[in-house]
This record gives sequence, structure tokens and C-alpha cells, in this order.
Amino acid sequence: MVVRLDARRMNPREVVRRLRRPKGFLSREVRSAVRRVVEDVRERGDEALLEYAERFDGVRPDPLRVPPEEIARARDSLPEEIAEAFRASAANVRRFHERELDLSWELELAGARLGQRVRPLRRAGIYVPGGHGAYPSTLVMTAVPAQVAGVKELCVCTPPGPDGRPNQRMLAVAGLLGVEEVYAAGGAQAVAAMAFGTESIRKVDKIVGPGNDYVTAAKLEVFGEVGIDAPQGPSELLVIADGTARPEWVALDLMAQAEHLSGASSVLLTPSGDLAGRVEPLLSGRPAEHVTLVLVRDLDQAVELANLYAPEHAHLFCAGAEALLERVEAAGLVAVGDTSPVALSDYAAGPSHALPTGGTALWASALGTHDFLVRINHMRFSREGLGSIGPHVERLAHLEGFENHAASVRVRLE
Amino acid sequence: MVVRLDARRMNPREVVRRLRRPKGFLSREVRSAVRRVVEDVRERGDEALLEYAERFDGVRPDPLRVPPEEIARARDSLPEEIAEAFRASAANVRRFHERELDLSWELELAGARLGQRVRPLRRAGIYVPGGHGAYPSTLVMTAVPAQVAGVKELCVCTPPGPDGRPNQRMLAVAGLLGVEEVYAAGGAQAVAAMAFGTESIRKVDKIVGPGNDYVTAAKLEVFGEVGIDAPQGPSELLVIADGTARPEWVALDLMAQAEHLSGASSVLLTPSGDLAGRVEPLLSGRPAEHVTLVLVRDLDQAVELANLYAPEHAHLFCAGAEALLERVEAAGLVAVGDTSPVALSDYAAGPSHALPTGGTALWASALGTHDFLVRINHMRFSREGLGSIGPHVERLAHLEGFENHAASVRVRLE
Repeated sequence: MVVRLDARRMNPREVVRRLRRPKGFLSREVRSAVRRVVEDVRERGDEALLEYAERFDGVRPDPLRVPPEEIARARDSLPEEIAEAFRASAANVRRFHERELDLSWELELAGARLGQRVRPLRRAGIYVPGGHGAYPSTLVMTAVPAQVAGVKELCVCTPPGPDGRPNQRMLAVAGLLGVEEVYAAGGAQAVAAMAFGTESIRKVDKIVGPGNDYVTAAKLEVFGEVGIDAPQGPSELLVIADGTARPEWVALDLMAQAEHLSGASSVLLTPSGDLAGRVEPLLSGRPAEHVTLVLVRDLDQAVELANLYAPEHAHLFCAGAEALLERVEAAGLVAVGDTSPVALSDYAAGPSHALPTGGTALWASALGTHDFLVRINHMRFSREGLGSIGPHVERLAHLEGFENHAASVRVRLE
Repeated sequence: MVVRLDARRMNPREVVRRLRRPKGFLSREVRSAVRRVVEDVRERGDEALLEYAERFDGVRPDPLRVPPEEIARARDSLPEEIAEAFRASAANVRRFHERELDLSWELELAGARLGQRVRPLRRAGIYVPGGHGAYPSTLVMTAVPAQVAGVKELCVCTPPGPDGRPNQRMLAVAGLLGVEEVYAAGGAQAVAAMAFGTESIRKVDKIVGPGNDYVTAAKLEVFGEVGIDAPQGPSELLVIADGTARPEWVALDLMAQAEHLSGASSVLLTPSGDLAGRVEPLLSGRPAEHVTLVLVRDLDQAVELANLYAPEHAHLFCAGAEALLERVEAAGLVAVGDTSPVALSDYAAGPSHALPTGGTALWASALGTHDFLVRINHMRFSREGLGSIGPHVERLAHLEGFENHAASVRVRLE
């Protein structure tokens, strides 16, 4: 059931090794299975896409692209209370990402004007997982940052249900957000279709969004041909709590994360044996198998472990939480204080719930507008600017043996 | 020799297809060769790293890590004129990237305080190519943005020469920049060593920097285990020029780009048959084989083609160049006007010369501080904030079947 670990005298790397779940999308078996699917869709287009749909989803979606009427119908049939909740969610996600958005800028340097133009991608592909459940909230969390960034064309792929159609709630949210291009296509084959283009699905510039190991491996496989966001695996929560935390609340937060099952991981780091003892009996059922309770020496050790583990979500549930936040160096999202359950950010707080997992928070960030932008650097030199920098450039070009580089500067100085 | 293309009546996609060079790092042969090297270094560490050095570089570097005295000696033996040129380059690169740097921010939303903490990576790996030539300028263009971002640990790998030591100019620049950790290790094996760690080279969080097809394929192979920047292939320049451009200058810019050879590509798009006719005889030698002169209807068609081709470098060499820049949607770096040869940016203008190639400018940007940062989102809700958003979150969690998510919110509202 619940795993307990006394880390007070353990080497921190060993603790993290024990907590870490394997990344299935990196496994050789998954990668080579996916490679075949990707190559096949690349070569045979829709025909291969539909064959794999039949094999993996048990159905050949017809039509592949969801007609506008189907999206409008789904949107109109959404209960008003639910529509309102999605609108509130989208509004917060929009405001958060408007603040995040990078802007173009210019800079004068001696005799030169340099700058960076920040531009939206022209066409982005979004994968929204389905299958066991349906996650219309994921469409909010991926499409809204893209819209804020200014991406004109959004191409959404999501797996068909047994009836060959995507989940109706997902379509309803597409309708609410004004997303018009949705395909009933899932798995590695959908990723390949967006990467290379087929008769029905036009090639995109970049593919984002979470998925299972096959979807993620397919994104890694097509990276270079198109852009992708950082790989996202099973969900994780790391709670740092002391004796001031309410055991009932901590237990529910751990259970909430753990109920994602399939590789999900909930970890409590606490110096309070009393808290751990009171949390444990509140954990039950299959989610409890995904919880680890770790006894640490103090909050310093907890932060040290958190920074090595680099969790997707962290929750600071202790005295001095704000000061502790300043010491967190690697985490996708940090919830601070006892009235900020992580579930808020899963659905509506503002930051995207598409977050780095499995330790990738060491180098990756939450999905955001930056995933949907490119930066075009530019420069223009005056004759004076050229005169002051040109001789340096000539010398360095000579040094590296690029005589035409040097000549292209020299001819303008003569 | 020089390829000429009359694109005035051609389909734009066909023109771009003719201009595009293959991406060797995506080839199945390169990928599977690299996969074996990567796995081997992962399993056997330094032993494998040294064996591959012997096989591919013809030498077993000893010691692998360059001693501080060797770096200091190289720095001190740099002619003052060259040292001054590198210092001028580094100063401009630093100022450009200081302006680019993203900052942390906070935002108040009804009853909630949300924010994003921008943090440097803790440990970044930089690959600096060597082999045929040596490119100390590449160390400036990658290490300085990392330093501006605040990365504390920089781990540089660069291939050994026949004497088992890295290029002395490269070491000199490391000394000038205060980069202390340099290894005589190149190729896919160096990338694998940085990704997984060996006895001598400690694992990094992310690997950046250009390299040959094997290096780039190795980066793609280890992506997910560590972060990487966008893949970079052979260099490209696309010049848009009209009848006002000086043929001699245009020709030298094309030759400068083309002298990188090995897959490099220089393209001139011009509506002026006269310009093309006067440029052609100025192109000579092996670089000329890498130049394509394209006749277009007008500057509108030139921009359309540029945006499909998404060049690494563009040079606007025509009337109304600034207005044209506003219409460029995809390019790594754009040089504007006739006194701004691209060579300036290769060495010292300020923007990094590590740029997206092969059309990846559709979704990737120049290397910059953003490559060395993570964004940690955070949130704290007041009781009121929780009260206003909580009921929406409960509804959405129910809708997706996550009852513990809903409960973790409800228990705090009671």
C-alpha cells in the first residue's frame, strides 16, 4: 500500500532515485514501435492513419475532421453551469498568459540598432488525450496560451471514442474557445499526421500537449521535422508540510494527485512523524498505492530533495512557505499555503496544467505563450557602427579561416 | 556551378523544395549509428568515451578535463589584438542578451496572487564543434547568453586535435570568459557523456550548441533525459535584393555564407535580372557550388518565398527594407540594409550566431537567455479567492471523473 521512507539519514540522490518513476516514453520498445507507426503514416498518409485508428481505437473515424455543426451542437448542449465553469477557467488562463507574453524590443548600441521581433507560430498542433477518460480541461490549458500568443491556425487531434467521434465535452470546449479545426485522431499516428501532413491533416509547425507514452515517444520521434514542447509523463505532486498542516487536507491533496493512477506519484516530505502518522490512515484504495510518505530531518532537507526531484507540482504547506518558495529551483508549479489546493491549477487558477514531469522541471517549464512564439533577431549598422566593429570582425574571421566573411566586411569599409 | 532558377511562374512550395537541403541528422543511418554510441557511453562511461575518441578523433585525450593552467596559458598567449576583438564581441553579445532576459513577475487576480519565477538552469552543457576548423566564436555565442541568464555551472565539450588537446584559441576564449570546465571530448560520445554523466563528466541539465549531423542526432537521441536546444544543421543565407544593391557586396555576402561548404546554402532572391547577371561572374571556386540565384516577379514574391523557406539568415538589401522586415515571419536573424553584412552577426554584433536552420525557424529561435532559463509558476489563494473559483473547479473535476480533486477543494470550502 502506502510506501513509507525514513530519509533522515539517507543520501539525497538515493532518496530521489527511490521516488523517481520510469519514463516509459524513453524505453527502447516504445520508441521502436512508434518509429514504425510514424514512418508508415509519413509514407501512406490517411490510409495508414485510418488503419492504425482501427487497430488501436477499434474504429475508422468518418469524417476525420469534425464538421463545424458537430462542434456547435456539442457547445450548445453543454449545461450552462459547466459552460460557465469553462468560461471562468479560460478567462483566468487568458489573463495569466497575457501577463506572461513576451514583447518585441529594440536596442541602440554604438552605431547599430538591434532588436528582437516576437512572432506567433503560424500553425500549431495540439494533442488532447482521450481514451480512458476525456480531458476537455486540457484543451483550455493548451489552446488558450496559443491564442494569447496570437497563433492563427490551431489544429487539434484527439482520439475517437467507440462511436468514431471525439468526446462531446471536448468538442463543446472547442466551440466555446472558437477552435474550429478538430480531428478524430489519436495516438502516435495522429502525431505523425500533424508532423508530416496527410491528405486530411495539413502539416503543422509545432506539436504540443500531453499524451500517453506512445504519443510522447512519437513527438520525440518527429522532433526536428517539427517543433515539440517538452515531453510530459505521468503526473506528480510533492507536498512539503510541517506539523501545522491539517492531515485531512494533505491526505486529500495526495489522493487527488494519485487518482490519475497509471504511473502517477504523490510524495509527502515532512519532518513531522505525527503528521505522516495521521495522514496514512486517510489514504485508501488504488490511489494509495501511488503515495510515498517520506520522513525528513527538517524543511531544509525537504527543499534539497525537492530541488533534486524537480516535481511537476509542489505544495508548500508549512510555516514560512513564501520564504521556502524562494528556495525552490526546479518545479513546474508551486502552490503556496493551505487554501491553495493544486486542483485549482488543474482546472482554473490561470497557469497551464501542461507541466514538466519526471524531473524535466530541471530544464523545462509549464506550457505557455513562449511555446507558441518565435524570436526573430534583427540588426542594421550605420557606417559608423560598421567602422567601429568591422575591424574586430575581420580579425576574428581571419582567425577562423573565413576569408570571404572578412572580405564582406572589408569591402564596405573601403 | 551556380544554380539559376526562374521562379516567376513557379509554385512557391516547389521553389522552396528545390532550395531545401536534406537534414542529415534526421537520416535513419545517422540516427541508428548514434544510438549505439549513446547507449554504449551510457553503459560504460569514460571507457566508451575514450574508445570512441580513439576511433573517431584518432587520439585518447589525457587528461579529459583541461587543467586550469592550460586554459590560463592559452588565454595569456592570445595576441592582444585578437583578445580585444573577442572582448568586444563578448561585450556586445552580453548587452544584447541582457536586454532579452525575461524577469520574474507577479499578478493579482480576484483573491489570488499568481506569478512566475524565472530561474537559471543549474548546469548547462555546451558543445563547441571542432574537427576541420576551430570555432572559438561559437563559445562566445553560447556561453555568454548562459552567463547572462545566470547559469552557475557551464560544462563545455569540444573535440581534441591530433595532439589530444582542444584548439588553443578555443581554450583562450574559455579563459577570457571565465569558463573553467572544458573537456577534450567531441562527437556523439561527448553529447552522451553530458546527458548521462560518466566518471569524469558530470551529468548536465541541458545541452546546447551546434555540431555536425552526428552531434545533432545525438542531442535528439538524449532529449527527454536532458533538455536540448533546437537542432542546427548547415548554415544558410537568403538575400533579398533589388536593382539598388551593389553586385560586389551581394556576391561577397553569398560567398561568405557559402564558404562554410558542407551543405551550406546561399540564395539570392531578386526581381532584377541585371543584378543576378552581374553577381554571377563574381562567384567562384567551391563556394559557388553552394549558391542559387533565383529570379522572382517582385519583392512580394520574395517575401512569400522567404517565409516558406524560413532561412537561418536573411539579408534585406533593397528599397523599403525596414517595411519588408515587418513582413518576415520566419528567420533566425535578419540583417537590414547595405552596411550590415551578416558576417557582423557571425562574430560580434550581439545576437547569437547559434541559429535555427533548415526551416526550423518556423518554430525555433536563435539561442538566447530563454534557452538557459526555467519558469516556475506559483499561486496562493485567499479564502475569498478559493470561494469564488472553487465551485467551478469542483464542477469541472466531477465532469472529468476526478472525485478526490473535487473533494480537495470542497473540504476547504466547508
